[in-house]
Amino acid sequence: MATGIRPWPWALVGLVFCAACLRSAKGGKLLVIPFDGSHWLSMRQVVQELNLKGHESVVLAPELSGHIREGWYYALRTFPVTFSKDRFHELIGSHFQWSFDQKPLLKRFFDIAVLFKMVSDMYFSFCVDLVHNKELMKSLEEAHYDAVLTDPANICGPFLALYLSIPAVYFLRGLPCGLDTESTQCPDPSSYVPKWTTENTDHMTFLQRVKNFLYPLPHNMVCQGFLKPYESLALELLQRDTSVADILSHGSVWLVRTDFVMDYSKPIMPNMVFVGGINCASAKQLSQEFEAYVNASGEHGVVVFSLGSMVSEIPMTKAMEIAEALGTIPQTVLWRYTGKPPSNLAKNTKLVKWLPQNDLLAHPKTRAFITHAGSHGTYEGLCNGVPMVLMPLFGDQMDNAKRMESRGAGVILNVLEMTSDDLSKALKTVINDKSYKENIMRLSALHKDRPISPLDLAVFWVEFVMRNKGAPHLRAAAHDLNWIQYHSLDVIAFLLAIVLTVVLIAVKCLKFCFQKCFGKKEKAKKATKSKSH
Amino acid sequence: MATGIRPWPWALVGLVFCAACLRSAKGGKLLVIPFDGSHWLSMRQVVQELNLKGHESVVLAPELSGHIREGWYYALRTFPVTFSKDRFHELIGSHFQWSFDQKPLLKRFFDIAVLFKMVSDMYFSFCVDLVHNKELMKSLEEAHYDAVLTDPANICGPFLALYLSIPAVYFLRGLPCGLDTESTQCPDPSSYVPKWTTENTDHMTFLQRVKNFLYPLPHNMVCQGFLKPYESLALELLQRDTSVADILSHGSVWLVRTDFVMDYSKPIMPNMVFVGGINCASAKQLSQEFEAYVNASGEHGVVVFSLGSMVSEIPMTKAMEIAEALGTIPQTVLWRYTGKPPSNLAKNTKLVKWLPQNDLLAHPKTRAFITHAGSHGTYEGLCNGVPMVLMPLFGDQMDNAKRMESRGAGVILNVLEMTSDDLSKALKTVINDKSYKENIMRLSALHKDRPISPLDLAVFWVEFVMRNKGAPHLRAAAHDLNWIQYHSLDVIAFLLAIVLTVVLIAVKCLKFCFQKCFGKKEKAKKATKSKSH
Repeated sequence: MATGIRPWPWALVGLVFCAACLRSAKGGKLLVIPFDGSHWLSMRQVVQELNLKGHESVVLAPELSGHIREGWYYALRTFPVTFSKDRFHELIGSHFQWSFDQKPLLKRFFDIAVLFKMVSDMYFSFCVDLVHNKELMKSLEEAHYDAVLTDPANICGPFLALYLSIPAVYFLRGLPCGLDTESTQCPDPSSYVPKWTTENTDHMTFLQRVKNFLYPLPHNMVCQGFLKPYESLALELLQRDTSVADILSHGSVWLVRTDFVMDYSKPIMPNMVFVGGINCASAKQLSQEFEAYVNASGEHGVVVFSLGSMVSEIPMTKAMEIAEALGTIPQTVLWRYTGKPPSNLAKNTKLVKWLPQNDLLAHPKTRAFITHAGSHGTYEGLCNGVPMVLMPLFGDQMDNAKRMESRGAGVILNVLEMTSDDLSKALKTVINDKSYKENIMRLSALHKDRPISPLDLAVFWVEFVMRNKGAPHLRAAAHDLNWIQYHSLDVIAFLLAIVLTVVLIAVKCLKFCFQKCFGKKEKAKKATKSKSH
Repeated sequence: MATGIRPWPWALVGLVFCAACLRSAKGGKLLVIPFDGSHWLSMRQVVQELNLKGHESVVLAPELSGHIREGWYYALRTFPVTFSKDRFHELIGSHFQWSFDQKPLLKRFFDIAVLFKMVSDMYFSFCVDLVHNKELMKSLEEAHYDAVLTDPANICGPFLALYLSIPAVYFLRGLPCGLDTESTQCPDPSSYVPKWTTENTDHMTFLQRVKNFLYPLPHNMVCQGFLKPYESLALELLQRDTSVADILSHGSVWLVRTDFVMDYSKPIMPNMVFVGGINCASAKQLSQEFEAYVNASGEHGVVVFSLGSMVSEIPMTKAMEIAEALGTIPQTVLWRYTGKPPSNLAKNTKLVKWLPQNDLLAHPKTRAFITHAGSHGTYEGLCNGVPMVLMPLFGDQMDNAKRMESRGAGVILNVLEMTSDDLSKALKTVINDKSYKENIMRLSALHKDRPISPLDLAVFWVEFVMRNKGAPHLRAAAHDLNWIQYHSLDVIAFLLAIVLTVVLIAVKCLKFCFQKCFGKKEKAKKATKSKSH
């Protein structure tokens, strides 16, 4: 048997004649409604692949945008918005600086809630500007798109697809507040499916299960505040009282950016397609600049360090602590950092404004990856088999980090509390303790061992929805039941009522018979007794 | 957009360089433990494909066998059994003759239970002969198989895999008594997932939901009788108290012979792979005999009629009724029938002892298919887009038939109660009412619209389990929880206890405060009153 690590054969598969290629003889028209930031960076790969297959894509975005720009493989259509430009940049720019502030847990929770509410309100404001733009809406209606490809983190995408009656494909990592499980009607037992941001694994102690059970409650309450405006908009435009989960439930196919090497096995639904690792399918040759860094690193190789596209500056005290730790290892460290260089930066540490993360991680001389454990970065570490030092900052990053640590492929550090020594130790551990490399290589091989590449799979399902005008056969009938019916509570009540009635009648009958049989004797006895007295 | 029916590109995909081919550089060793009958006929295609990929398969079967014979693509290893040969042929031969006897529902249920118990006891007896055959068991242990491919309808397969500690791949349509859902820990809400043999669809009335809720109870009770012997065997050999569901739960991957065009959308688990239609991937050229029949049928074409491999004779009265009906249509009827020919057989009806069912159904001149709605036949009708007259006899056939009828692709007839006229009408309906052809063609296109063929998918997952020594990452942690933990009943009880304690303490405190505050006043008042009196 061939075991161990095999070359990734997807590139070859992509080149040859495949089922999907045969089917897309004529190009379709796709409306793409993204969510800004790193979400868009992986979604656009699907758009590019669809372009190569002859489909036309129109990317619809507000004029205020961070990462969504013109591209050769789609037409960008922006729309004017009323949201203040300065406020937009303020929100996006200072987005995650608070991650480095030491705060009590409750204060942190409320700060996140406030930040999320502001971002959510901004997206809602964009959505209102879009749907009230009569000229644009008319042209969208007249364009007769075959499908909408959207990230449901931007609720306006699913909303617009429903409003325009175009079948939708969702592209996502997951949604907060259990919105994804509710909208897919996917069972989600809290006893072994860790809830979002709990940092639980699938094997929990009793108290972790209590936490997992209770955790969604405050989140769901907070979410109601974010979702309410969309429900009012639905009432105005769709003329019906509906929830956001119901709006989302009309998605034909959910392309979920995860797999069961990183995430834990759990119930899924037939319209959920798993494309985790879609962002690291093809590593390119390094540029001269980075090739030079790597070649100069000698036998010790390099360490790649990035806290993601949203965080490029950190407080100077923390930066100096980190710089000190990086100086203690023999590897060359390539650190994506745009702030003021720490004064104690060691010779082995190179600061760069941007780095080709996936290409660097794919290089055989890369020894470790210091990451904030965003889903994209973690998958790039996983695909390329690089042990990680994980510094989760917020959202699902804690969960991603926990998944890697629980599988022996990385070490988690609390970025707020760690010392220089902690980081130095963690780096030396993942680089020198061979078990980390062995574990990540094993996971990497498992992750890549699939019948079809995640990118081809995503493209297939978008084309499927375009060809078949949706996928109604994959929609569970559970969507047509209310909560009582779904859990068979009415059936149980009905059966209990029957059982109770039967028991009651039986008791009455027995009582009646008893009285008939023994009542007379009793009376007779009494009568005899009274006579004898 | 390319819509409508496209050529089936799987054959092409199979020919080209694929991911799986690259990986199986060196052949593995596979132990195959089948279930006799039509189950084996589709499973052996996977064995054949694995042989073409360089893997060695040993098929392990009792010396008494119906369909399991020598094959060029596997080594057959039979073992001696103590079960009587005559009793075996009696059981297999007369297996389904009772299907044509008119009986009250309850009598029918008990008759089926008795028959199933006899077959189950026979398989158990084979299993005991196998595991107590020391020489054979020793050689199996020493052979170091990479995986076991088995049909869990033969419980001995999963049992042996567990006993020999070899990872197992299951190949099945489904299991009775909810054994499949229990063993995979797959949620199965009775509110919209129709239970086995209920004939319900996924949209049920209240009373159908009551039936769906109650239906498993008697089945599960009957099943306990079948499963008990295996639990005793497990206690003897595995030295532990275990259930059959627990034995089955060790299957790494479940290759389920269904899809969501025929079956309804419902929760699934990550280790369930759907390969429905695997039996009709490649239609071959017809032999001269059948080509001649089809060519001679003229513009009206042919109707294919078979009640499956287990039923080839039917009572003469019924056969004559059927023959009469067949004479009323202009099509040529090819009827698989080995009994005495009915005297009223019309000229258009040809009796044959065997027919190439899938190849005939794939012929463009085939107008309709009269079938007992076994899963293989129904999928062959579906794949080839042939409208069906469905005469379900037992087991899941009622369900298969209902699925086709509810989608407008066939007409169900009760074979016991139907008249000659009913069959004639049903045939004319599915042939002349264009909606049946349109519906089955639409379903057929949807069924075939997949990223990878079911046969390639099945082969991939068998190779995956061989390569990776199982698929533990796909096993849900739910297997490690008991019923109370799974449903979080302990967590709910704990939280209720806390709430009750808090409420109790609060009430006590309030009562105490109330007494402190108002008790004195009350006393003072009483004292004042008593003084004033």
